[in-house]
Amino acid sequence: MAKPSFPDASSEQVSSALRAAEKAFSVYRQLPGERRARFLEAIADGLERDAEKIIELANSETSLGLPRLQVELQRTAEQGRLFAELARTGAWLEPRSDEAEPERKPLPKPGLRSHNIPLGPVVVMGACNFPLAISVVGTDTMSALAVGCTVVVKAHHGHPATCEKLSTLIHEAAKETDMPDGAFSLLHGESHRVGRELVQNPSTKAVAFTGSLKGGKALATVAANRPEPIPFYAEMGSLNPLFVLPGALRERSEEIATGYVAAVTLSAGQMCTKPGMLVTIEGPSLERFLKQSVLVTRESSPVAMLNAGIRDNFEANVERFTKSAKLIAASEQAPNSSANEASCQLFVTDASDFLGDPNLQTEAFGPSSIIVRVKDEKALLKLANSLEGTLTASLHVGEGDCAIVDKLLPILESKAGRVLWNGFPPGVVPTHATHHGGPWPATTDSRHTSIGIFGYRRFVRPICRQGFPSP
Amino acid sequence: MAKPSFPDASSEQVSSALRAAEKAFSVYRQLPGERRARFLEAIADGLERDAEKIIELANSETSLGLPRLQVELQRTAEQGRLFAELARTGAWLEPRSDEAEPERKPLPKPGLRSHNIPLGPVVVMGACNFPLAISVVGTDTMSALAVGCTVVVKAHHGHPATCEKLSTLIHEAAKETDMPDGAFSLLHGESHRVGRELVQNPSTKAVAFTGSLKGGKALATVAANRPEPIPFYAEMGSLNPLFVLPGALRERSEEIATGYVAAVTLSAGQMCTKPGMLVTIEGPSLERFLKQSVLVTRESSPVAMLNAGIRDNFEANVERFTKSAKLIAASEQAPNSSANEASCQLFVTDASDFLGDPNLQTEAFGPSSIIVRVKDEKALLKLANSLEGTLTASLHVGEGDCAIVDKLLPILESKAGRVLWNGFPPGVVPTHATHHGGPWPATTDSRHTSIGIFGYRRFVRPICRQGFPSP
Repeated sequence: MAKPSFPDASSEQVSSALRAAEKAFSVYRQLPGERRARFLEAIADGLERDAEKIIELANSETSLGLPRLQVELQRTAEQGRLFAELARTGAWLEPRSDEAEPERKPLPKPGLRSHNIPLGPVVVMGACNFPLAISVVGTDTMSALAVGCTVVVKAHHGHPATCEKLSTLIHEAAKETDMPDGAFSLLHGESHRVGRELVQNPSTKAVAFTGSLKGGKALATVAANRPEPIPFYAEMGSLNPLFVLPGALRERSEEIATGYVAAVTLSAGQMCTKPGMLVTIEGPSLERFLKQSVLVTRESSPVAMLNAGIRDNFEANVERFTKSAKLIAASEQAPNSSANEASCQLFVTDASDFLGDPNLQTEAFGPSSIIVRVKDEKALLKLANSLEGTLTASLHVGEGDCAIVDKLLPILESKAGRVLWNGFPPGVVPTHATHHGGPWPATTDSRHTSIGIFGYRRFVRPICRQGFPSP
Repeated sequence: MAKPSFPDASSEQVSSALRAAEKAFSVYRQLPGERRARFLEAIADGLERDAEKIIELANSETSLGLPRLQVELQRTAEQGRLFAELARTGAWLEPRSDEAEPERKPLPKPGLRSHNIPLGPVVVMGACNFPLAISVVGTDTMSALAVGCTVVVKAHHGHPATCEKLSTLIHEAAKETDMPDGAFSLLHGESHRVGRELVQNPSTKAVAFTGSLKGGKALATVAANRPEPIPFYAEMGSLNPLFVLPGALRERSEEIATGYVAAVTLSAGQMCTKPGMLVTIEGPSLERFLKQSVLVTRESSPVAMLNAGIRDNFEANVERFTKSAKLIAASEQAPNSSANEASCQLFVTDASDFLGDPNLQTEAFGPSSIIVRVKDEKALLKLANSLEGTLTASLHVGEGDCAIVDKLLPILESKAGRVLWNGFPPGVVPTHATHHGGPWPATTDSRHTSIGIFGYRRFVRPICRQGFPSP
């Protein structure tokens, strides 16, 4: 049997990459921001220059489709330039100072100046579902590099060739802009051993991970049990509930049903913000809503998932749903569909069945969702209160819904990182005010975002200089 | 045998306090900032009103002395008012927004508005050494209350009566300003069980702890292993090294020696920033420095520590020092000294002995310190590089020391949360630019400060509202 093209990194290769990252850190962190900005811009330029080749490669490994990957590449390049600007302006330093008061009684007050400094080498483990924006050159890597951290990326085994290509591009950019050796490196590691060793290595000072709850939990434990525990930022699973309130259901049931199914099937349901459930109150408008949902689902085409393993997992998950929920619609698969192809599946259940079955409360990565009928406002609030942490929650609001919004919104804000008004996730670009995070188990650290400019805050800490001479 | 005056909280009392804190949270977090500001101001007013009684009680339980406790009380009241102002202005909300671009291509961009929200009920476990500023009404409690978190404090068993008095004062302030029941409560718990149960309780959303490395580590593990892990902020032990560079030693050896011993003996060496070690290069000025250090130490009076147990721990620690370091001076104890009284003890050792003995690299809580002689600049940098994380590091700089500062400062900044220039810790008031934190094992989370205004950031997370109608 031929060797796999991308063998797992050996323990020695893991150590060596982190030794190099630590050595490079002492130089890289002290470079002027302008130098780091040029490095990041060279990466963004490289992405655009090689766009066609990268997209083709990513599509061959993920089946995500050219249009989606084109948008993703453009967003990744744009975000790279935002982080270059962050490095250039030094806004991430967040300086603050207190003037000295040498005459103060009973004691003189020394002057204090604080600013952020980078934590050190960062390990990045990207996602299967965003081979460009949340992988080798995504927010994690670019925000860490912007603030002076060096980076070791573990390639995702779902798209190793894309990772290699992106790594080559970063190495070229590093050479072109004269960055120290070891500022960036890529390792492959399908085996859990590689991930564990990367987290355990004493040179690693923070980890950014995007993936499953199971994987995130396991590595969070490794990070917490090191002799020197380190921050471990995982973005994991999420139900992303939609709440369709009575007024909205009355006014726009068809429109909401159409938008809902579109959000469920977007990128084969492989978005971390896919709405896994929709909650609404029983009533005359519900039938219209269900009818339209069924119609749109049946009309939707089956979709190729990232790979056969992910499709099998999806099928196993929806199979488990049938214990407590009723399948009401599925997109039709051709008899000769490929091994990766999945059918969009829509379920209906009642609040008590939903609450009684933990299976239904767990993310099924893929194009499925569960409509949960509740009998009244009280039951809706109870259900909302019972939910676990989630990346997003969405509210659909119409006339007469104000009173229930006043009660529901604080609950949803206590559960979610982002709340959408009359919208469907994702529908957002990563900028200044974005927050992509949320309470456990959506992430391991609800205080931080893994998308958008403030992603850099995961990789810095303040240092305070007291009584120093004026700079 | 009479019952102890402050029995440990039962498991039921722990649950009940956190149930009440959770219930109160839903009301308290939604109060206007002005209301919370008045609550905090009423606490600060109460502190000043009852200052004499509080200080007397604290002194009887801690032996810290009236002058020190007077300053501490004043600082605590002032800090309470700073947090009241934070609640009033709402600066902690840190709002940020991106305008909607409905015409944007390929997709319209929804408007985004982010701001901070409180995490939920916070558990506070204060320090033995600051019965006012880092206890029931310290930064932890006041910053959490300012941003809308409710608080359950575990009293320190070293000063339970002071804790009770402060708790009564907070309850009075809560009544006066009409706060919801359960917004604040105090429990006693000498047994580790109480601390564990407080951290494990599902209603607890964050913990602030000040104490030993051993205690902090144990509870950090409990927090990380909950079904829903929560942020655990511990401020623990620290060596707080002083680096006296050759120029400074030449120019000001007596002055530095005097300041050093004063910092070691301040509050019986029971400051978390006590310099546990001083590093300097061998040379002709060192003798003068040592002579003065010995002189000042011998002249210093023995000091009463917080209690007999803490004194016994201190004696055991310094006893262990003698394996690899030489005692060069001690303040003289009277033959009939009290059980709490400790003698200030100064040691000298060489870099290799220091590095070879883990005992010397561990904080000894109390009035002792170790002078580490290194033979040259290279050895000094090597020693600096070998240090663990620390709250503070101090540089004493004179003519001709610039070159070594350029190399040493980045190392110290990678180890410490605060670096002092020609100063001795603590020497700082908690304000805007303060940072009291540092890499493990100084704290469990180097990104945050436990003193100063930004202490509130431990208890908030961002929420993002997308596509909402204008407020």
